[in-house]
Amino acid sequence: LIGAGLLDEALPRVVGSVARELVLVVTNETVARLYPGRIERALAGLPLRVETVVLPDGEQYKTLATLERVFDRLMALEANRKTVLVAFGGGVIGDLTGFAAATFMRGVPFFQVPTTLLAQVDSSVGGKTAVNHRLGKNAIGAFRQPHGVVMELELLATLPERELRAGLFELIKHGIIRDAELFGFLEANQRRFAGRDWGFWEEAVLRSCRVKAAVVEADEREADLRAILNFGHSLGHLVETHTGYARYLHGEAVGVGMLFAAYASCHWGDLPQADFQRIRALLEPLLTPVHMPALDSRRFGTLLMHDKKAAGGSLRFVALRGLGAAFIRERTAPTELWPLFGAFLEDLPGVIGFDESAAAAG
Amino acid sequence: LIGAGLLDEALPRVVGSVARELVLVVTNETVARLYPGRIERALAGLPLRVETVVLPDGEQYKTLATLERVFDRLMALEANRKTVLVAFGGGVIGDLTGFAAATFMRGVPFFQVPTTLLAQVDSSVGGKTAVNHRLGKNAIGAFRQPHGVVMELELLATLPERELRAGLFELIKHGIIRDAELFGFLEANQRRFAGRDWGFWEEAVLRSCRVKAAVVEADEREADLRAILNFGHSLGHLVETHTGYARYLHGEAVGVGMLFAAYASCHWGDLPQADFQRIRALLEPLLTPVHMPALDSRRFGTLLMHDKKAAGGSLRFVALRGLGAAFIRERTAPTELWPLFGAFLEDLPGVIGFDESAAAAG
Repeated sequence: LIGAGLLDEALPRVVGSVARELVLVVTNETVARLYPGRIERALAGLPLRVETVVLPDGEQYKTLATLERVFDRLMALEANRKTVLVAFGGGVIGDLTGFAAATFMRGVPFFQVPTTLLAQVDSSVGGKTAVNHRLGKNAIGAFRQPHGVVMELELLATLPERELRAGLFELIKHGIIRDAELFGFLEANQRRFAGRDWGFWEEAVLRSCRVKAAVVEADEREADLRAILNFGHSLGHLVETHTGYARYLHGEAVGVGMLFAAYASCHWGDLPQADFQRIRALLEPLLTPVHMPALDSRRFGTLLMHDKKAAGGSLRFVALRGLGAAFIRERTAPTELWPLFGAFLEDLPGVIGFDESAAAAG
Repeated sequence: LIGAGLLDEALPRVVGSVARELVLVVTNETVARLYPGRIERALAGLPLRVETVVLPDGEQYKTLATLERVFDRLMALEANRKTVLVAFGGGVIGDLTGFAAATFMRGVPFFQVPTTLLAQVDSSVGGKTAVNHRLGKNAIGAFRQPHGVVMELELLATLPERELRAGLFELIKHGIIRDAELFGFLEANQRRFAGRDWGFWEEAVLRSCRVKAAVVEADEREADLRAILNFGHSLGHLVETHTGYARYLHGEAVGVGMLFAAYASCHWGDLPQADFQRIRALLEPLLTPVHMPALDSRRFGTLLMHDKKAAGGSLRFVALRGLGAAFIRERTAPTELWPLFGAFLEDLPGVIGFDESAAAAG
C-alpha cells in the first residue's frame, strides 16, 4: 500500500486482518523520537496487545546480538506463532525484523512500515531479510515475504534531504534498468525531487516498486534476472569500500556507479549515445561529488572483485542495451574496466576526485 | 539412505553431487572422540576442501551463541553460497546445523549423518531446524530440508543401550500412530531390540522413516496432521518438566506417555482392548520406571498445558482409534485426564512412582 495518510486507516485494517492477540512493533531510537507511539496509536482500536521494542539506530547494530534482544522480548511477552511483528524504520529495522519473523517459532507474520525512501523502493520489496556478520554484510538471513508493506509517504517529511536523494538513486535505477516510461516520468518531474509533493512521490514509488516486484517475482532466489538490480553497484561498492563506508551513503555511491555503468555501456556500443545523455542529464545534478584515496589498476581490480582472491577473475557487470533494458555482461574483466574508468574521469570531470594527500601518495 | 557401510561409498557420492569447493562438517566432542576424522576420510577422494568444527556436546549448547561459532568458522573459511554443511551427530547437531544451513547466506545445502537412533527416526526427517532460547525449546528456527540424510547403522554400535531404547520408543510410535504392519514387525522382532542386527534395524528404521516422511509430506508446516507425531508427548512433556529434564531421556518420557495415551484411548472406547494389550505388551518391558515429585490436579493441569496461563484451557490430545490410527482429540481438558491418570497409576503399577520425600511434602 502506497500513499499519504495510510497509518490510521490502512495499517489497522491490514494488521487487524492477520493479528489476533499480540503485535510487537520493532523500531529504532531515531524513529521512536520522531514518531513516539505512532504505530501503537494507529492500532489502538484493535482488540490486540501492542508492545514495542526500541533498538539502537545504525547499520552497526544489524547483528545477531540485536536480534537476540527481539527474541528476548518476544519470549518475555509469551509470544507464540500467531504473534505479528511490525517493522517501523529504515532498511536495517526492516531486514532485522524480517529475519526475526522468519525464525521466531520457525516463522511468524510480519508487516513493514518503511520510514525512508530507500527502504520503500528497495529493501521492503523482495523478501530478503538478514543481519550482518562482522566479516560480511547480510551474511546471515532468510527469504521471507512480509504479509504487507504500508508505505506512508508522509513519513518522508522528516527524512533528511541527503537520505531522500540517496533513495532517489535506487528509484531512478528501476527506471533505467527496466522501465523507460518511469524514467521519462522522472525526467518530466525533476523539479519535484526536492519537495514534498505526495502525489508525485506516490506515482514514483509505485512505479519503482512495480519494477522491483516484477524482477523479484520472476527470480526470487537470485538465480539470474534479479542480478540486474545490482546496476551501478560494482563501482558503487568500490566507492563505499575505498572510502571506509563512512563518507557516502549507499545510494550516493550507487548513483556514481550507475553513471559509470551507463558510460561503459555507451562505450561498448550497447547503449545509444542519446540514451546515455538522458541518463547523464538526470543523474549528474543529483550526484554528491565523490572524493576518495588514489587508485591504481591493481587496487581497482581487487576492490571490484569484492576483495576476493580470485586473481584474474571477472565480474558479472550489469550493463545497458538501451534505456529500460539492462542485461548481465558476463566475464567482464576489471582490466577491461580500468581504462574506461580513466576515460570516465576525464569526460565527466567533477564526478569523482581523489584526495590530494592520497593522490600524492598514490 | 539407510544401511550399514554407507559412509565410504554413498556419502561421498551424494555430497560430491552437490559440493563443489568447500564442505564444513559440524560435529560434537563426543562424536569427534568416537569417530575422529571419519567424515573427512570418507570425503578425501573428492576434489573438495573439507573442514570441521567441533562443538560441545549437550542440549544446553543448542543456542544462538553456539550457532555463531559455526557462522564465525564459515566466514573465516571464506565460505559462500555453494558451501555445503554436513551435520555429524545426534538431534542437537542436526537441528543446529540445519538452522545454520537455512540462514547462512540465506541458505546453503546441507546433509545429515545422524549418529543416534533417535536422530535417525525422528529429527533428521521433516525439515525442522532450530536452536533453543533460554525460555523456550526450539523457539528460534526454520523449515529447511536437507539435500540428503545418510543413516549409517554401524554408528549405532557405539550408542549407549539406554539411548538406543529411547530412540526405539519414537520408532515404535510411528507404528502405533500410522502403520500397524510396522508395529507387527516390531512385535515379531522384540528379541532383536537389544542387539546389533543391522538387517533388522535397516528394516525398522526404513519403515519408521517412511511413516514420518509421509506425515510430514502431507503437512510440512504442522497445520494439522503433523500433530499426530506428538503421540505420547502430552504426559511425556509433563514427566520431563516435572523432573527438571535431567532424570529421563526424551524418548523414555515419551514411552510412558504413549502407554498412557493408549490407556486413555481404550478408556474412551476409541481403542479396542486387544490393541491396547498389544501396545502394552510391547512397551512395558522397555520402559524405564519413572519416579517424580508428587502431583495434585492443579499442577497436573498446569504442566500439561505447558505452563501456559490459559486457565480452563484444553489440549489437542493425540489419541488412537485403533493400532495404526491416531487422531487429534480436540478440546481434551486436563480435568478430564486427571482421574484417568489416577486409574492408570493403579492399573499399571510400577510404570510411574512418586518420590517419597516429595510425596510426603505433596
